[in-house]
Amino acid sequence: MHKQLLINGRKKSVYATEDPTRVVVQFKDIATAFCGIKIAKIAGKGKINNAISSLLMAYLEEHGIHTVFLKKLSECEQLYLKVETIPIDIVLHNVFAGTLAKRLGVEEGQPTKNVIVDVNLDSDELGNPMINDDQAVALGIVSLEELLFMKDVIRKANDLLKPLFASVGIVLVNFSLKFGRDSEGRIFICDEITPDTCRLWDAKTNERLDKDRFCHDLGNVAEVYSDVLNRISVALKLQ
Amino acid sequence: MHKQLLINGRKKSVYATEDPTRVVVQFKDIATAFCGIKIAKIAGKGKINNAISSLLMAYLEEHGIHTVFLKKLSECEQLYLKVETIPIDIVLHNVFAGTLAKRLGVEEGQPTKNVIVDVNLDSDELGNPMINDDQAVALGIVSLEELLFMKDVIRKANDLLKPLFASVGIVLVNFSLKFGRDSEGRIFICDEITPDTCRLWDAKTNERLDKDRFCHDLGNVAEVYSDVLNRISVALKLQ
Repeated sequence: MHKQLLINGRKKSVYATEDPTRVVVQFKDIATAFCGIKIAKIAGKGKINNAISSLLMAYLEEHGIHTVFLKKLSECEQLYLKVETIPIDIVLHNVFAGTLAKRLGVEEGQPTKNVIVDVNLDSDELGNPMINDDQAVALGIVSLEELLFMKDVIRKANDLLKPLFASVGIVLVNFSLKFGRDSEGRIFICDEITPDTCRLWDAKTNERLDKDRFCHDLGNVAEVYSDVLNRISVALKLQ
Repeated sequence: MHKQLLINGRKKSVYATEDPTRVVVQFKDIATAFCGIKIAKIAGKGKINNAISSLLMAYLEEHGIHTVFLKKLSECEQLYLKVETIPIDIVLHNVFAGTLAKRLGVEEGQPTKNVIVDVNLDSDELGNPMINDDQAVALGIVSLEELLFMKDVIRKANDLLKPLFASVGIVLVNFSLKFGRDSEGRIFICDEITPDTCRLWDAKTNERLDKDRFCHDLGNVAEVYSDVLNRISVALKLQ
């Protein structure tokens, strides 16, 4: 029997546990896009994303990057450390694509000369605008030290995830991470690492293997996510 | 007699001189807004802005900040060092206002907790988007070292200009600087420092003393700019 529902999010629900420092996160069969304007049910997505995120979070943990992930509990549930989510998205780009390419007038698909790390304010109402370090500090969201720490973590995560995906023919074009603070102010990667939060392209065909399938009505969302899960499982065995 | 016209800009023309390291800049009676969509002739504006920019550039020079300004030649002309303009605007905010306030959902008029320095890509076509350090470097516009230098210069300029304006009842809400490189790669403040590039509010009445008079049809553009010039002249005498 579940405990108290703490957060009823679009894509995940969070429940309390008997331990006040732990929560249960339940992945739902929901896809969202365009700041929540487009929403649909995709059968099987919750189960697949739960499996992908469990594998990738555990992989980062094994390599010394602290995440909230403790263990996979069931098909759709994980046990997390309880944290307070910091309302920004940190995004890392290896290749120009999507909004970044459009905003800067660069052709989609061009590798970035250097890794680009962006910070976006997590606010659907404001259209999740990009912010810089001074703005994040001025808004009282983070200290500069915390922000630099998070940017360092996403670069380290990229150094692990990019070759992992590459080993099974997937280009990690970009990905976003959310972070949270525990009661002692320590910072952990939270939320999820899935094709909803990573832009993944097939290295040979450039086929989209991520949320763009839903955003741009490319179809076969669950099938493609399932293929990503299978490839990640192979990649982890190759390590 | 003028030499070759090098740049026929909306608000300024640039002419070659007999010295290849020097150019003559001529301020025009033109006001522009919204990435050049709104344009009008304002009689007297060129002369006033020429005077204001000459005073402020000279003031920064006196305090060890390198600008392209060499001397005022006539009512509408200055002699500049010749530089290659770097296509970004560095903007410093002391108070939330305009686009920044709107983008971040903060009430206009609230002082920023810390000084905010933004970098915008100088591209009317792309709507002059805000970019971060990684993006500026990835676009090949500047090295990280150059960008950090320019951000440091605008903070130093603010430390000089903010109290200067304050001494004559003007709040320096925000201002933008352009920079250029000389043939040896040295970086100088270029372009202009005027009510077209500074957001200035009367400290008592909050009356707009800047480009917003033109953008938002508040009228009396030349009269208000002339008042700013008079106040700056007083402020410099008070130093």
